[in-house]
Amino acid sequence: MNVPTTTQLKTMSIPELKELAHFLREQIISVVKINGGHLASNLGVVELTIALHYVFDTPYDKLIFDVGHQCYAHKLLTGRADNFIKLRMADGISGFPKQSESEFDTFDTGHAGTAISLASGLMRARNLNCENYNIISLVGDGSFRTGQTQEALNDLGTISGNHILLLNDNNMTISKSAGAISFNDELLKNLFNSLNINYVGSVDGHDLEALISCFTKIKNENKQFAIRILTEKGKGYKEAEECPDKFHAVARVSDGEISGDYAAAFGEKLTELAAEDSKIVAVSAAMTDSVGLRNFSNEFPYRMFDVGICEPHAISMAVGLANGGMKPYVSIYSSFLQRSFDQILNDICLTSQNVTIAVDHSGFVDGDGETHQGFYDISFLSLMPNMTIVAPRCTEELKRVLEWSVNFNAPLAIRYPKAIVKTCNSKCKLTRKFDNIENEDTIFGQWSEKSPEEDFIILTTGALCFSLAKEVKRIFAEKGINIAVQNALFVKPIDENYLLKLDGKSVITIEDNVEKGGFGSMVADFFEKKCLHTKHFSISIDNPVLKQGSLNELIEISGFTPNAIVRKIENFFNRE
Amino acid sequence: MNVPTTTQLKTMSIPELKELAHFLREQIISVVKINGGHLASNLGVVELTIALHYVFDTPYDKLIFDVGHQCYAHKLLTGRADNFIKLRMADGISGFPKQSESEFDTFDTGHAGTAISLASGLMRARNLNCENYNIISLVGDGSFRTGQTQEALNDLGTISGNHILLLNDNNMTISKSAGAISFNDELLKNLFNSLNINYVGSVDGHDLEALISCFTKIKNENKQFAIRILTEKGKGYKEAEECPDKFHAVARVSDGEISGDYAAAFGEKLTELAAEDSKIVAVSAAMTDSVGLRNFSNEFPYRMFDVGICEPHAISMAVGLANGGMKPYVSIYSSFLQRSFDQILNDICLTSQNVTIAVDHSGFVDGDGETHQGFYDISFLSLMPNMTIVAPRCTEELKRVLEWSVNFNAPLAIRYPKAIVKTCNSKCKLTRKFDNIENEDTIFGQWSEKSPEEDFIILTTGALCFSLAKEVKRIFAEKGINIAVQNALFVKPIDENYLLKLDGKSVITIEDNVEKGGFGSMVADFFEKKCLHTKHFSISIDNPVLKQGSLNELIEISGFTPNAIVRKIENFFNRE
Repeated sequence: MNVPTTTQLKTMSIPELKELAHFLREQIISVVKINGGHLASNLGVVELTIALHYVFDTPYDKLIFDVGHQCYAHKLLTGRADNFIKLRMADGISGFPKQSESEFDTFDTGHAGTAISLASGLMRARNLNCENYNIISLVGDGSFRTGQTQEALNDLGTISGNHILLLNDNNMTISKSAGAISFNDELLKNLFNSLNINYVGSVDGHDLEALISCFTKIKNENKQFAIRILTEKGKGYKEAEECPDKFHAVARVSDGEISGDYAAAFGEKLTELAAEDSKIVAVSAAMTDSVGLRNFSNEFPYRMFDVGICEPHAISMAVGLANGGMKPYVSIYSSFLQRSFDQILNDICLTSQNVTIAVDHSGFVDGDGETHQGFYDISFLSLMPNMTIVAPRCTEELKRVLEWSVNFNAPLAIRYPKAIVKTCNSKCKLTRKFDNIENEDTIFGQWSEKSPEEDFIILTTGALCFSLAKEVKRIFAEKGINIAVQNALFVKPIDENYLLKLDGKSVITIEDNVEKGGFGSMVADFFEKKCLHTKHFSISIDNPVLKQGSLNELIEISGFTPNAIVRKIENFFNRE
Repeated sequence: MNVPTTTQLKTMSIPELKELAHFLREQIISVVKINGGHLASNLGVVELTIALHYVFDTPYDKLIFDVGHQCYAHKLLTGRADNFIKLRMADGISGFPKQSESEFDTFDTGHAGTAISLASGLMRARNLNCENYNIISLVGDGSFRTGQTQEALNDLGTISGNHILLLNDNNMTISKSAGAISFNDELLKNLFNSLNINYVGSVDGHDLEALISCFTKIKNENKQFAIRILTEKGKGYKEAEECPDKFHAVARVSDGEISGDYAAAFGEKLTELAAEDSKIVAVSAAMTDSVGLRNFSNEFPYRMFDVGICEPHAISMAVGLANGGMKPYVSIYSSFLQRSFDQILNDICLTSQNVTIAVDHSGFVDGDGETHQGFYDISFLSLMPNMTIVAPRCTEELKRVLEWSVNFNAPLAIRYPKAIVKTCNSKCKLTRKFDNIENEDTIFGQWSEKSPEEDFIILTTGALCFSLAKEVKRIFAEKGINIAVQNALFVKPIDENYLLKLDGKSVITIEDNVEKGGFGSMVADFFEKKCLHTKHFSISIDNPVLKQGSLNELIEISGFTPNAIVRKIENFFNRE
């Protein structure tokens, strides 16, 4: 069947709409199975999305998706069916709403809890401009527990005019929803009444007739409504219905070319260390599985705290744990850790608390696009006083650093990627173990005791850049040029003793972080300050607004393939 | 009378405790009138603090103050009465709880909404260590509406063992509490019941007998309680009772040496511009008065949105306003803006939204100490794509920039200090108007068309550093050395054309921001990249963990007095 336009949709019968729902599910399942993406969340809102476009006059009426990882049916219905096969690919469409893709996408979203804030502002603008479109916010129950949503709700209640808040209650965040509050109609009725918002009650989110009837009644009413939509995550796909957390996000089938499960290595080692040290506890923000802590959670259920999509709380809570004598490890994706900037600075760093942050998904993050790239963590963490940042070059080194960290009693961030590129080209297979790594010691602030003999040195930060640099070294070796590769295990503090030995040499820094405030900038500042006669060339993320794509596509687009790096280095030094 | 120890306190009669309350109030009023500080909030919790120390066994039992600006009575009762006269002074005691000051201070706090998070972690650590002390969190109703508090509450409900949550309800944040929710016992009973927390009800926060009786009943109970404490902000000081917002924070009497009300200039100019342009709207996070927007709010009540202590929501809400066709100006203190890092990056910058952030209280902030210094904003804002940062050199230039900003349709941050030093020494009086400022134009990215004739150039960022640099110039002139002073109005992008003209010269950058990721670092990176033969010396905040003090004290301690800067410059260039 052909996907109808939103205009055609309005002329269809209920049986036809049901058929459409079935068809959209098939499309979503078949594409996500190949391209990866958010499966369970999207399958849960198919009927809801159809009903919304059936009743409301989008894009005149504004539909705001919180997080946005549940917009696939919406994209299929709003002119992107033909491109849907390229979901999450560099030359395709994003898995999140994008203003640049369609006028049906009201805002670009990606992180949880912003929908009602965005809606509040839009409502106020609409009212000031004497317009009267409907504004509909779709918020999952996980996002509903995020602090920003609660801030926005208190404000929302003061605003006049139409707003329809749909609470998509599947009782799941990514894993099972965390926290004490479990929703029921009485609780929600009390809450929304106290906010001067009309609570409509619960509607079965898979019953098209009920949804359409409900929306039709409140459309164009100059009032605020809240409706609880009961949905089933993974609806219509048996395996996803049974294990919705596993099918929240599905990996690309063709991801065979990437390697290195850093989250697994983190979880494995931390579990091992926790068996020996009863003070070790772990904290996650709705990501127990994704950050590799499922087994830790099974082994030490009383020492694992998943606080839901609440990164600010996760950080301050960990400070409480540390003050009570525990040794907390908080694992959060780089882009979500941005939510906790103020708490990391004030609660951890100013008083130098003994909290370790595992910065997962740092650097390139495939599939999810702009909002999920981990390109800022070196910059924002390194400007905080008392913070130490390490970036291990492989999973083995990650484990060694974790061992070392147990007796490191100050703020620490360990950054590692989601994955690294396994095969750069047909000639090269990157391994997970390097050199004599098991014989190395971790010494605070030290990259290496030895200074390199070569005149050209590549300094890298962490696993992906190190693996690329090894291949760059090989390519140059074929050309008869010897280059040393050194990973800067300690990104902060930098190894000044090592850098001082580079006087007169040519130094290339490579980092999967923005240039501003990044590793290359720290090295440059040091060279400048010490007046070293060192030629320095910095390779970093030039354009951090990097849309969706596979890891190989992202690396290609950003000029981070070994061949592109070789060309950049040659251009720089030929220019001199 | 002498202030009793917490042990002596427990032996006192109710009439004696009442007398003590009266005495503590007198102490607080007399010291705050001279030293400045948070007056109304502290007067509101005198009886409450006495009752807590009377009933609980502090410091074994843990008392956590949210924000911490209500800890004066606590400090007086816990060994700091003699030092209280030096409240907020560099050689005295902090106006906020500090672990380094006393074992009675459980955590260092400063920003709203962290208490329950910290308590949650501490509870878990206590439970794991099989200890059984009481943990008491005191949270104001303003903080209660902050997102992090709501995140923490949902988690709190899952934790076993004792916790006593005191909701200090004075129905004020700093100004009148924002938002739709107004607390009542039924609402709170429903809320806490849904969290599995026992709601005790309301207690008169100025009735010592009622407080003591209530706390005695629940002390050492292995359960969670929530109690609403009804207090009157400013209690016992007539003027503060009548205008608690005016007396929330009181300025130092001796602040005559500082000048330049940047917030007032911002508010005045924005109100003027808003009269001409109906699209201009303003957003504040519980700071309408402090950021200078009271008059704007009176003139344009429907275009002023104070959302409470909810900085993340404030930013995303402004993006909603911008998308609806308005021109939002969000004014937030530098240190509180840190709360919105993720929202500024994702919601404003990635899609280059037309939102202006007025970064008030950037640089040195007197009195409040470590958590309130505005030393990071250049670093964290400049690493965001599409962000422009300007730092005007005086209130006149601030106004001119605001005029210019009306037609600047991209992310913009305007940073300015709370105040600048007026008289650097007896010889120098800094004015608010410089040169021919009214004849200047604001041109995107341009510092000056002209290149300086002098061989020494000081580049500054904003009002305080510019005023200091003018005095440095004067001191050098007396020594026969000519130095040019140029303010970098655009901190990002830097004026590359101007910098290129500095080849071969000596350049000093001065910024009231940390070095890492700051202005000096941007200049250094540019010089390095262009291989200019420029001697560059960067003066920035070496130690951002800067405790309380007057502005002059802070400048002295940080080596930012004109004389100290002169010495630093001489040392640097003599060393060469």
